[in-house]
Amino acid sequence: MDIKLLKHFTSIQKLSKVEIEAIDETMIIRNFKKGSILLKEGQFSKDVFFVLNGIVRQYYLADGVEKTSDFFTDGQWVLSANNVINGMASKNYLDCCTDCTLVVGDSEKGDDLYLKFPNLGVVSRKLMNQVFKEQQSKLEAYILNTPTVRYLNLMKSNPDLFQHIPQYQIASYIGVTPESLSRIRKRISKKS
Amino acid sequence: MDIKLLKHFTSIQKLSKVEIEAIDETMIIRNFKKGSILLKEGQFSKDVFFVLNGIVRQYYLADGVEKTSDFFTDGQWVLSANNVINGMASKNYLDCCTDCTLVVGDSEKGDDLYLKFPNLGVVSRKLMNQVFKEQQSKLEAYILNTPTVRYLNLMKSNPDLFQHIPQYQIASYIGVTPESLSRIRKRISKKS
Repeated sequence: MDIKLLKHFTSIQKLSKVEIEAIDETMIIRNFKKGSILLKEGQFSKDVFFVLNGIVRQYYLADGVEKTSDFFTDGQWVLSANNVINGMASKNYLDCCTDCTLVVGDSEKGDDLYLKFPNLGVVSRKLMNQVFKEQQSKLEAYILNTPTVRYLNLMKSNPDLFQHIPQYQIASYIGVTPESLSRIRKRISKKS
Repeated sequence: MDIKLLKHFTSIQKLSKVEIEAIDETMIIRNFKKGSILLKEGQFSKDVFFVLNGIVRQYYLADGVEKTSDFFTDGQWVLSANNVINGMASKNYLDCCTDCTLVVGDSEKGDDLYLKFPNLGVVSRKLMNQVFKEQQSKLEAYILNTPTVRYLNLMKSNPDLFQHIPQYQIASYIGVTPESLSRIRKRISKKS
């Protein structure tokens, strides 16, 4: 198993050698070129991703316009409702903003694994809880923060992002037009 | 066990009599008067709620202003990140918009239960998946929908709500001022 992924799992829960091997068998490491599409609206994919290196973007298409909803970087899980609800088509897209190295898992293999290794059920529950918490934070950010605060938070939490992501995607993520983002950036640089 | 709750659980997963009793022991049914506060910002509560009757509102306080983020009605689970992450304080409030009958569970009792009854671990995972999906739909609504569409969707999904909820809370939920909500309502009534 990749050492980063192993560290990630053992930070969540103590695992036996057999349990680690069992997880490892359900996952593969794959490299993706910048611009690769990992998921499209309407697909019934069960692939979940863990980012080892790179940036994955989640977005929606509304009347032909991309609405960026999230960026995922090293050490983050990328999963959506279609991974956990049977027969549900994806509503969002996922693409690679940079060359990416990702661990690809199959969310359908979970249930068998948890019956055989109850401890892995605990890991899965803790992981889902973490993802749920991150999703709630995203919701809170939409409800509570102005675009300027969303921009400042992104700069703080993900400074590397700005070297790789075009301005229009960052504007879309904070919920403004590219022109408004320019004004926000000017105001911030004057203050600092 | 309350018959509504039993139906809810058995629609998710087939359960044995012993499993049903085990769940039942961790939950109690309680009545709350309209206006009761179930959770405050900063609290470390492990209570999760299942709505048997009534309407529960989730909101945030931002500079003293209430920002309504959700309404939960009959047959819905009310849980937040503080329920699933150890040592996490709540960021939101929960109050009762009407007199409510709620099943109150303790999210800390879960892990012991799942080790003893692995099938209840499956139930818990399916429930969390459903809650995760609902949360993603909420996020999508923030990203994709205009206030008018959010208003129309609420009217469709929750028509009963409008008899019980003050206009300012509905305005806050769709993300506009009460004055803008009046204008939206006028436009809609002209069209229909």
